[in-house]
Amino acid sequence: MGKKKVVIALGGNALGNNIKEQKEAVEKTAKVIVDLAKQDLDIVITHGNGPQVGMIQNAMDGLATNYDNYMETPLPTCVAMSQGYIGIDLQNAIKYELHRQGMDVKVSTILSQVEVDKNDEAFKNPTKPIGRFLTEEEAKKNQENGIPCMEDAGRGYRIVVASPMPKKIRELLTIKTLVDAGHIVITCGGGGIPVVDDGGHLNGVNAVIDKDNASSLLAAELNADFLIILTAVEKVAINFGKENQEWLSDLTVEQAKEYIAQEQFAKGSMLPKIEAAIRFAESGDGRRTLITLLDKAAAGIAGETGTVIHK
Amino acid sequence: MGKKKVVIALGGNALGNNIKEQKEAVEKTAKVIVDLAKQDLDIVITHGNGPQVGMIQNAMDGLATNYDNYMETPLPTCVAMSQGYIGIDLQNAIKYELHRQGMDVKVSTILSQVEVDKNDEAFKNPTKPIGRFLTEEEAKKNQENGIPCMEDAGRGYRIVVASPMPKKIRELLTIKTLVDAGHIVITCGGGGIPVVDDGGHLNGVNAVIDKDNASSLLAAELNADFLIILTAVEKVAINFGKENQEWLSDLTVEQAKEYIAQEQFAKGSMLPKIEAAIRFAESGDGRRTLITLLDKAAAGIAGETGTVIHK
Repeated sequence: MGKKKVVIALGGNALGNNIKEQKEAVEKTAKVIVDLAKQDLDIVITHGNGPQVGMIQNAMDGLATNYDNYMETPLPTCVAMSQGYIGIDLQNAIKYELHRQGMDVKVSTILSQVEVDKNDEAFKNPTKPIGRFLTEEEAKKNQENGIPCMEDAGRGYRIVVASPMPKKIRELLTIKTLVDAGHIVITCGGGGIPVVDDGGHLNGVNAVIDKDNASSLLAAELNADFLIILTAVEKVAINFGKENQEWLSDLTVEQAKEYIAQEQFAKGSMLPKIEAAIRFAESGDGRRTLITLLDKAAAGIAGETGTVIHK
Repeated sequence: MGKKKVVIALGGNALGNNIKEQKEAVEKTAKVIVDLAKQDLDIVITHGNGPQVGMIQNAMDGLATNYDNYMETPLPTCVAMSQGYIGIDLQNAIKYELHRQGMDVKVSTILSQVEVDKNDEAFKNPTKPIGRFLTEEEAKKNQENGIPCMEDAGRGYRIVVASPMPKKIRELLTIKTLVDAGHIVITCGGGGIPVVDDGGHLNGVNAVIDKDNASSLLAAELNADFLIILTAVEKVAINFGKENQEWLSDLTVEQAKEYIAQEQFAKGSMLPKIEAAIRFAESGDGRRTLITLLDKAAAGIAGETGTVIHK
């Protein structure tokens, strides 16, 4: 028996929405990661990139508009850029916290691609919001230019892209090699760079893969013991926001499926996390997902809080 | 004796100046890399990023100008983004060429930082041009805003940044681990993300490290046998462009130093390549640098062309 292996999926609040917020947020995030590293766990970190990849695409589009020699930068390239943009700050913050606590652990960030099915239904129905909020006018203009936008929970309009299901972590062997060598590995940033395999040619596609789905697949392929999905609530609830609201500490796959059938979990929010947790649990014996707040991760792993989903 | 190890430093013409040119250029580059991979060599690839990091900085500056919630993106962050922007296309092109030729070799791209000395004299005198050519007016406006610009060889103005000497490849162990596991590794893109070590805190600095200097250090630290610097000429010349011009096939460190004293090599062009080659040769016995054209790399390694610099 080696060390227990854990895949930690960081949510947006672990990263912040611009470079200043990011540099502050990753300091806090790093403390949580190092607390987990002390528990003798092999650690792989994934993260979202919604606001960041939208920002980068926005910036690159500006170039294409203003200069003749630049054309549009494809979204998968922007995802690759976002892995650099986020990865470097996250890696350095973790490395510093390890150093501060006298721990000699290596940290590596891998450019990583996740394969999707080019016939995935998601391509017909883009639903994943990226980037900043737009005015109605901006959204209209985008729509006219063939860029789908949607109203986002009463907060304004945002560009939406397809969110296909991940099929294969292309850099799995790279991640495994580094984890086996004792590295904390940052990978599958933004759910991974979305690609399809056209006869051996990995071609980027216009999509953003849900990072919880990608993390669930990665955890399964790495034969991890734990998937930790860090989010904005300490526990999963049913009857959320109602009088009979109930926080859950423990949830079997069967119970989870029943609650999904009852539409207990919000689409685009808790639902995909629960679905990702179910897929991980069903991928092998003893596989458990913890959903909790960033700063409750260590307590959650110790069984003191959060919601655990398991077979 | 293991396999011979080679660090290949790709020049600008191996990558192109925009995303369309890049996707075309890396196909050609990939064929060269795979030809070398067939010679039973361990391969590490580095590359420049002058035009790309300038483009990214330009794009990100546009955001900071146009939106209140975005501030300037530091240059080292832009270098990290350029590693993603370039690395993903380069990795996929190599991976496809390997696949096409029936070779099962893994390819990985590592986000990588290179440490510099914060007291490096280069910070007082920025000389490295990045990004697109500017009009005199644009250059003047930049200067007024504290962004140094210089006239570049009669072709227009460009932003210039400091180009300090690399001191340490921070992700060396990651690179080693993957090379030992048989991966072709793409790393130190753009000379690496420039950082200084402030008491364990790796802080990005406003600079671009010369990729040939970074590659020379990387080759030395990896204990490589060969450093290949790919550029726009097949061989190094003395009396370049004159009647008595002479192409060199073989150059000892002593000869190279003498030619440098004679100012035979152009600053910002062939000179830093020769200096990088000298440093690699002097770092250990049997270390050789080949300078040649991209499509002559395999012939050069076979001793048929190019210029070899050695002790």
